[in-house]
Amino acid sequence: MAEIKLNADERIDQLYSKDVKIIQSDAVFSFSLDAVLLSEFAKAPKGGHGLTVDLCAGNGAVGLFFAKKAAGTITEVEIQPRLADMAQRSIVLNDLDGRMNVLNIDLADTLEHIKPSAAETVLCNPPYFVDEPQSTKNPNEHLAIARHEIKTNLATITDVASRLLKTNGKVYFVHRPDRFLDLIDELRAHRLAPKRIQMVHSKIDREANMVLVEAIKDGRPGGVRYLEPLIVYNADGSYTKHVHEALYGE
Amino acid sequence: MAEIKLNADERIDQLYSKDVKIIQSDAVFSFSLDAVLLSEFAKAPKGGHGLTVDLCAGNGAVGLFFAKKAAGTITEVEIQPRLADMAQRSIVLNDLDGRMNVLNIDLADTLEHIKPSAAETVLCNPPYFVDEPQSTKNPNEHLAIARHEIKTNLATITDVASRLLKTNGKVYFVHRPDRFLDLIDELRAHRLAPKRIQMVHSKIDREANMVLVEAIKDGRPGGVRYLEPLIVYNADGSYTKHVHEALYGE
Repeated sequence: MAEIKLNADERIDQLYSKDVKIIQSDAVFSFSLDAVLLSEFAKAPKGGHGLTVDLCAGNGAVGLFFAKKAAGTITEVEIQPRLADMAQRSIVLNDLDGRMNVLNIDLADTLEHIKPSAAETVLCNPPYFVDEPQSTKNPNEHLAIARHEIKTNLATITDVASRLLKTNGKVYFVHRPDRFLDLIDELRAHRLAPKRIQMVHSKIDREANMVLVEAIKDGRPGGVRYLEPLIVYNADGSYTKHVHEALYGE
Repeated sequence: MAEIKLNADERIDQLYSKDVKIIQSDAVFSFSLDAVLLSEFAKAPKGGHGLTVDLCAGNGAVGLFFAKKAAGTITEVEIQPRLADMAQRSIVLNDLDGRMNVLNIDLADTLEHIKPSAAETVLCNPPYFVDEPQSTKNPNEHLAIARHEIKTNLATITDVASRLLKTNGKVYFVHRPDRFLDLIDELRAHRLAPKRIQMVHSKIDREANMVLVEAIKDGRPGGVRYLEPLIVYNADGSYTKHVHEALYGE
């Protein structure tokens, strides 16, 4: 195992199902179930090759998980230096520096670093909340930027995703249901046709609290499929089989 | 029971949960689970009063079921004379002619018969399929009109619904998932803000095959809720509790 320096507030967590180790810090960023479900929902590019770009990468969780099912190269794009540094160290920690890298940039500048239409796949677990003047934000700036659209927004993200993708390339988002229509509108405004949607419910009798969306660059409109509901917990509070396998393997 | 004349191809079916009898004919129109679930999903107007308009009423099933939970008056709008006649006879059969009536008109002309902003509630189980020149249609014209957008379309229906509704009045649709985005777009284009959405799956592990949508006239955008999934059948093929109760009562 590579020798990795940890800061005082950091720990190494493991996603057992993927045998991935991730440097985490509750003080700045820790991945949650959203990242695991997004990396499960996203399909590896055909043949397993090609470039994947993870936008709003945070500490790199989504890209690191996806690396275990997709060959090819993965670029993590993260604006916060502290998180980009954590992601870079996690890449080394998992011996993935041969095919993963981190761009510590504003994602709006991604096309200065990656050629248009170069990507097979784009992944994004974006900040969920609109940055409204009156909205209550976390006083911790790291967490506020990860959760609120302070440094970017859906219009910019979908525009960048669209320009990065090849024709028929796919973008995958996880988002909150109350932003689903915003997301769908921005995707369609940027040549990204929604094709596969899955609602996530904490329990079978609860409203959706997350939504997973696949869209195809220059795909024909129509033919959207709404997959079986993804349920997180059984009635007794244990993880459902699907989620247990996503976290711990089969 | 009122004496009702039945045509040769007609029978009387019963929805036990609502104690409603309906004149049906497989030769021209029979209600299906869609109508039952729509009438369950739709909420009775506050106080239970006011006008409800059922557009694309067919043999009147949705309005007849809804009459059992909502007081006030209900107008069925149906373009096909044969189906409108069946609906009218079913109203008499259920002793509901005091507060239900049928307009045998093109729904585009509804505002010539009902004042704008007069309705608390609009219900609609529309034709599901786009009327494309190459699409295969039922050679039976009655069924073709009920299933394909031959005589109307979502733009017209949502326009009429919006003009019929009071501010904060509600419209309820059942539709197919692959038309969900079309429906959402037309609703929003006609001052109808989607608020409550429920995906219907034949089984827990299947894609959605129906969607129920509530929208509010001049409602503020945002705050859309995606309800718990509505599952029709258990793994053993029996109806789930929710659907069994909708069909047979508690």
